[in-house]
Amino acid sequence: MFFEGAEKKVELVVGPKLRPLRAKSEKFWEKIVLASGATILSKIENDSCTAFVLSESSLFVWNDRVLLLTCGTTKLVDAVMLMESEFGAENIESLIFQRKNEFRAWEQSTNFLEDVESFKTRLDGTAMRFGKIDSHHNLLFHLNKPFEFSEADSTLEFLMYDISSNASDFFMSEENSAQNIREYLHLEKVLPGYLIDDFKFEPYGYSLNAIKGNLYYTIHITPQESSPYVSFETNDEVGKGASSVLGHFCELLGPASFDLVGFNLSLAELEISDKFKCRTFFKDKLKNNYDVEFGYYFRDGQEVEKPFFF
Amino acid sequence: MFFEGAEKKVELVVGPKLRPLRAKSEKFWEKIVLASGATILSKIENDSCTAFVLSESSLFVWNDRVLLLTCGTTKLVDAVMLMESEFGAENIESLIFQRKNEFRAWEQSTNFLEDVESFKTRLDGTAMRFGKIDSHHNLLFHLNKPFEFSEADSTLEFLMYDISSNASDFFMSEENSAQNIREYLHLEKVLPGYLIDDFKFEPYGYSLNAIKGNLYYTIHITPQESSPYVSFETNDEVGKGASSVLGHFCELLGPASFDLVGFNLSLAELEISDKFKCRTFFKDKLKNNYDVEFGYYFRDGQEVEKPFFF
Repeated sequence: MFFEGAEKKVELVVGPKLRPLRAKSEKFWEKIVLASGATILSKIENDSCTAFVLSESSLFVWNDRVLLLTCGTTKLVDAVMLMESEFGAENIESLIFQRKNEFRAWEQSTNFLEDVESFKTRLDGTAMRFGKIDSHHNLLFHLNKPFEFSEADSTLEFLMYDISSNASDFFMSEENSAQNIREYLHLEKVLPGYLIDDFKFEPYGYSLNAIKGNLYYTIHITPQESSPYVSFETNDEVGKGASSVLGHFCELLGPASFDLVGFNLSLAELEISDKFKCRTFFKDKLKNNYDVEFGYYFRDGQEVEKPFFF
Repeated sequence: MFFEGAEKKVELVVGPKLRPLRAKSEKFWEKIVLASGATILSKIENDSCTAFVLSESSLFVWNDRVLLLTCGTTKLVDAVMLMESEFGAENIESLIFQRKNEFRAWEQSTNFLEDVESFKTRLDGTAMRFGKIDSHHNLLFHLNKPFEFSEADSTLEFLMYDISSNASDFFMSEENSAQNIREYLHLEKVLPGYLIDDFKFEPYGYSLNAIKGNLYYTIHITPQESSPYVSFETNDEVGKGASSVLGHFCELLGPASFDLVGFNLSLAELEISDKFKCRTFFKDKLKNNYDVEFGYYFRDGQEVEKPFFF
């Protein structure tokens, strides 16, 4: 059973006229999410943020910004275009849209270049690729508008591929509940003080949102052998210190490779196990002022592997 | 300007009833090639083999077998199905069909799994993937029939990605002719005694067929920045000895990475520059008795790279 775990992602910051964004009704966000082809499954909130678990990934709403991730064959571009018409281009201070190399690109209803064409009918932006065309990469579209972000505005994406057969077996066990997945991941220890909302999909797959003040984590697990992928994203100060969250997940999930994408964050400062080797490293400053780094890492040490049978 | 260099490939061996295959008319082969969406551009022949350069890659015909490679958005599956109906499944002793991970999979009119469904309506075979789903890989379908191949029946595919900017600049120069590309590649030295037929495409791109007795080489170059790819395939004893052909092309074209696919050939016996590191290695014996090895190699030493702008 194949499922395209790779997320499309948009982070959109609005101007003062539209703040506080959280004043908008849940109906409004339902409509935005539905435009992509996903639906809202559940919600948590605190003083700063409302977080929704979706049928395909997650939505976070703060007073000044929206973060929407959708996976599978959803059309995130349509949700972005709907937000653009609801908000007005002049009220959008920053927009960063991302897609990564998909396992079955042919099953997607649009490709990145088509999405960019749609955006460019109404928004002035730049499209680029971090990473090599023949390898892991991240496609990014952003507005050309300079943006003044706060000091704390940094994000880490940690995208794991080909997790170990032990981890995969665990996630594909039929007896799993959200609770024992949480325990397996040691989330109470990893995310102290966070309010957690998670969901176990049938027959497998797991999504988690966690919030603490302005901070968030979101984790999505697609364990199937034909599409083994785990994504992890946060604006918390991850990976600094000995018992880093990165190290914890590398140890526990045993990916054969992973990508790191950092916004306003130096990947060199992260503590990465020396079992992993950086294959490609891309870096640039976007026209909206964000610094972006992309690294593709893989587990060193070559084994003889057997083919996969369809 | 994007062009999908990645070839689809079929090698098909016929039984005694259909031999000699070279007795078939050029019209017949034109029809087969046309079924894939390609056309014949030119032809060379010797006592053992007829080789055609196509608008998209190459066709080789021996008395017992056909090798057809087509790139771009061609539908090789349709040419295979036409050969099946012309030859009759009972007269096909071996069939190996391959596709690799494409840069723009969404532009292809069929995907590998659809091709396999077509094959399985008339042929009993197995579909498999050598290489990881998130990385370079080779998809392969073959008949389950055991096949008795001759001792000399070995093939090497050498697929180079992201060639150096020097090499790319050379191939993208408008003043190139087939002759000075041949000189740049030192082909007279590399392919001694071979009869050569090559073609320079407009504005760029280069195809070469070379034959000597039963032996062949075929080289296809897609230099554009958005799709830098060079493929090289032979049944000659390549890479054995100090001044190996592999080493020559690695040095000259400076790929960032390459794949090697060996049929009845041990990749470990090839002389590979220690500048390149093996990232994944897959190995298996097919049900038709062929031994297949797949290795994905990349140039060691990480550089900071800039994104690609669309």
